[in-house]
Amino acid sequence: MSTPPFLSISRRTRSTPFSRRVTEAGAKAYTVYNRMLLPTVFESVEADYHHLKKHVQVWDVSCERQVEVLGPDARQLVQLVTPRSLAKMQDDQCYYIPMVNDKGGMINDPVAVKISDDRFWISLADSDMLFWLKGLAIGKGLNVDVFEPDVSPLGIQGPKSDDLMADIVGDRIRTLGFFRHAQFNIGGKDYLVARSGWSKQGGFEIYLDGSENGEKVWDILFDAGEKYEVRPGCPNGIERIEGGLLSHGNDMTEDNSPIEIGLGKYCHREAMEICIGGKALIEEKISGPKQLIRGLKIDGDRVPPCPSPWPLLDDKGQKIGQITSAAWSPDFETNVAIGMVAQDHWDHGNTVSVQIDDQIRKAEVGPLPFN
Amino acid sequence: MSTPPFLSISRRTRSTPFSRRVTEAGAKAYTVYNRMLLPTVFESVEADYHHLKKHVQVWDVSCERQVEVLGPDARQLVQLVTPRSLAKMQDDQCYYIPMVNDKGGMINDPVAVKISDDRFWISLADSDMLFWLKGLAIGKGLNVDVFEPDVSPLGIQGPKSDDLMADIVGDRIRTLGFFRHAQFNIGGKDYLVARSGWSKQGGFEIYLDGSENGEKVWDILFDAGEKYEVRPGCPNGIERIEGGLLSHGNDMTEDNSPIEIGLGKYCHREAMEICIGGKALIEEKISGPKQLIRGLKIDGDRVPPCPSPWPLLDDKGQKIGQITSAAWSPDFETNVAIGMVAQDHWDHGNTVSVQIDDQIRKAEVGPLPFN
Repeated sequence: MSTPPFLSISRRTRSTPFSRRVTEAGAKAYTVYNRMLLPTVFESVEADYHHLKKHVQVWDVSCERQVEVLGPDARQLVQLVTPRSLAKMQDDQCYYIPMVNDKGGMINDPVAVKISDDRFWISLADSDMLFWLKGLAIGKGLNVDVFEPDVSPLGIQGPKSDDLMADIVGDRIRTLGFFRHAQFNIGGKDYLVARSGWSKQGGFEIYLDGSENGEKVWDILFDAGEKYEVRPGCPNGIERIEGGLLSHGNDMTEDNSPIEIGLGKYCHREAMEICIGGKALIEEKISGPKQLIRGLKIDGDRVPPCPSPWPLLDDKGQKIGQITSAAWSPDFETNVAIGMVAQDHWDHGNTVSVQIDDQIRKAEVGPLPFN
Repeated sequence: MSTPPFLSISRRTRSTPFSRRVTEAGAKAYTVYNRMLLPTVFESVEADYHHLKKHVQVWDVSCERQVEVLGPDARQLVQLVTPRSLAKMQDDQCYYIPMVNDKGGMINDPVAVKISDDRFWISLADSDMLFWLKGLAIGKGLNVDVFEPDVSPLGIQGPKSDDLMADIVGDRIRTLGFFRHAQFNIGGKDYLVARSGWSKQGGFEIYLDGSENGEKVWDILFDAGEKYEVRPGCPNGIERIEGGLLSHGNDMTEDNSPIEIGLGKYCHREAMEICIGGKALIEEKISGPKQLIRGLKIDGDRVPPCPSPWPLLDDKGQKIGQITSAAWSPDFETNVAIGMVAQDHWDHGNTVSVQIDDQIRKAEVGPLPFN
């Protein structure tokens, strides 16, 4: 599709506590993520990118819907659905966890926020893990409540994030560790704030607890942020490829294992032995993966959008993988891409061919993130 | 939002076996449904409506994703998730089934297609019931496979549907009963075809088995349909309100019981006694619902779109319900709407007030479908 179509919005494509502000701020395009609106463009993808890497942005990422797991068996249930061991996880930690099905295939890659041994928030990528966790809990008779709380993350991203947040909540936030969380008072109410977010520019996520507080928090951020040139933003297609941040549903699906997408380090033996799908992962760890996620630099001028995968070909024209995300990077002055590459071709520095519609281009295999 | 924003399309907002044809046919807007593209407008919502009620349309409703439940415990698992008794369901039947959570709240309202006692396709509304069914099956240790097959429904809807389909597959299809299915040969391959679909104009759904066959089947329908003025179409916001077809996520959510939305007739005692959430439904059947879904005719000229609910008010200004879908009906020459109305106000013929942004209008409570 050369020009994007319109999006029909209804109650089903849920609005967020910030939607009115996002609309007022001039969001030009959206996607739907967890049956909720996620803005994708404000000024332009490229202008948003430059601003994100220089200043600070406020992102409505409410679509990272939460699943609250509450009760004596909470930790047991969360450990059942991920091969990452939670044994050493502390009560102020966030873990990026692969979630896998019974075949070891990736069904989500959320951030698990541990509040206590009997209370977790699972901050989702785009699939209804609420039903997976609830179905398992009911099926196994676990003593746990599983529900979607009224909690909507708001991202503060960009190099000036610390300055902006410190002006609002005090300098204590500067010492918050990566993927750690604590309570901070914003506008008279305490919120869980984590040092996290889907960019490599640094920043925070405020877990807005209570939709009614959304516009108040938004306005506080924009009032305080004026001197930092704060703008509304959103996950940026260029920056996140440069940074090697994978998008579930784009760069991996349930057809991929966590090992293939570089999360073998989060597949722990003791956890694989008890989690669903763990057996398949143990076997794959022994035999080794057949393909791996890679960064790719694609020759030539600006590539078109990549709404469906582009095949990677060897010099005989055989398929050896696929590219699933691609964009022109102004800073790297090349096309950056993320793709899955077969074993014989995945070494850094290798050259492969990529078929983009009717065109064949060369691409160089390399690491993620780009450097 | 006065003009709709653009939709950003990626691999994650899955394309369908028919997407290329739908794009070529000039779809102007889409929504995302089960993480898949669903067109919403071709010529205009009103022009599409008039055509649907007079001729025949082909609808890409691939987004009604299937969950296949396969194995000796298939029927047991499906019965576990719905209060509708499957005891008398025959192997060529489709059932509209409420699916409820542990509180009896609606989490989906799919069509269950029974192929045999050990094989069902659940044709979903917009939520990932794959994970619910799979989580329950694993948790309970049932002997059943649960997966998303490569099956994409294609709707044939409108008064000329029988004529068009008979020209392609023969007159046998004219005798196919409502919500019955059978195999029919289209272009050299047998497909399951059901007399069903999300309009009140009559028609069929072809369960396209094998994405690679999509464009072939599409082209056969359009070649044969020329004499019936066939056009591409999609679920129509006006026609489905007139017809009283509820949209999950719009007209009901997990906060509503099947009884509230008029599906008490599908809550059977013997099934409620064994299904998840059945206990809550048994209690509600005894005490009676506190609100019911209704049709409403709203006074005045054309209402704006209804992306979030409009409150219904009594003559003291107290909230007594909400409207969740509304449109101007050219045929009824009034605004037709669907909403939830509290007990003291739900009688047909009652007048209530509806708050549309800053405006108050009168509305008359009545039955669904409109007549």
